[in-house]
Amino acid sequence: MASEAGEKPESGSKLVMATKPQSWVLPMLRLLAFSATASAALVMALNKQTKTFVVATIGNTPLKATLTAKFQHTPAFVFFVIVNGMASLHSLLMLAVDFIGPKYDIIGLRFLVIAILDMLNVALLSGGASAAAFMGQLGKNGNSHARWNKICDKFDTFCDHGGGAMIASFIGLALLMIITAISINKLKNQFNNCVVP
Amino acid sequence: MASEAGEKPESGSKLVMATKPQSWVLPMLRLLAFSATASAALVMALNKQTKTFVVATIGNTPLKATLTAKFQHTPAFVFFVIVNGMASLHSLLMLAVDFIGPKYDIIGLRFLVIAILDMLNVALLSGGASAAAFMGQLGKNGNSHARWNKICDKFDTFCDHGGGAMIASFIGLALLMIITAISINKLKNQFNNCVVP
Repeated sequence: MASEAGEKPESGSKLVMATKPQSWVLPMLRLLAFSATASAALVMALNKQTKTFVVATIGNTPLKATLTAKFQHTPAFVFFVIVNGMASLHSLLMLAVDFIGPKYDIIGLRFLVIAILDMLNVALLSGGASAAAFMGQLGKNGNSHARWNKICDKFDTFCDHGGGAMIASFIGLALLMIITAISINKLKNQFNNCVVP
Repeated sequence: MASEAGEKPESGSKLVMATKPQSWVLPMLRLLAFSATASAALVMALNKQTKTFVVATIGNTPLKATLTAKFQHTPAFVFFVIVNGMASLHSLLMLAVDFIGPKYDIIGLRFLVIAILDMLNVALLSGGASAAAFMGQLGKNGNSHARWNKICDKFDTFCDHGGGAMIASFIGLALLMIITAISINKLKNQFNNCVVP
């Protein structure tokens, strides 16, 4: 549909007009990506579980110790929160640029800059989500070779919430990849109705 | 320089000609990225350290145990090797496309496909390198909250080689990001000497 409309050299064809028919798809995808990454960042940032363990028993009195699992204890989860927050901000900013941008686009570099920024955000988000996923896998299964015991059997709620945040982040990553592909394609569509001399 | 040359609507201007002056930069960057990711994959894949520890002493006879640190023991490092291998293959393939592509480019989608593939490879490589980096940080410093002890004090050579592989991988990632930005820009330059009706 979109490319058909773009190929016809119509009368009032400005550069921006070529991407008109699909103009609601990208903002909607950006909103979805924003909600996915924002919820991932929030869920992980608020992830905290306090648990009391019985360490020893003296006579009949149990000796208790209270341990807390926080996302701040693992560098990979801190990176995860930062990166998801940045991706959310990027989505909001690009939404604003989508609506306000056409008025202030001076030298026609807007689409190029958006595509490159999208690409950089894909890289960031992919790094954060992967690092958190592998760290979560270590927490869930442990690593017998390094003698690292699993901790998800003790902090089950912490692990469940973290897993949910990772799923949201990977959904956001997939959406951001699609968005980047659309952004790159826009750069091409921009010139769909121009003539090579 | 390149964009100046592209803006002049010269006589024999084919679409492909617009990117001529910089045509040696991209293959060179791709070769560099290939060597960085390939060496990262190789160094990590061949990373193995066997060490004999004295576990106990019975009388005067020391009781020894031999432990081996391999990259296969950590899922993040396996992912790292796979992803770096894939990025190397991608670089080689794109080098081939750069040289052979112009002859077989039927519907003009070559630059679009290359840019999107580059973007996907950035995402993959970023995920692999970040996951390995955070796992390496855990091996180097441990995590007292989860009671995971550091292992780099015992397997120093293993950790040094792994760190080298990660540095190579991050250099490859930076190169691949620059390459992707150039690929995206090519999509725009392709139309530099065309006229909007």
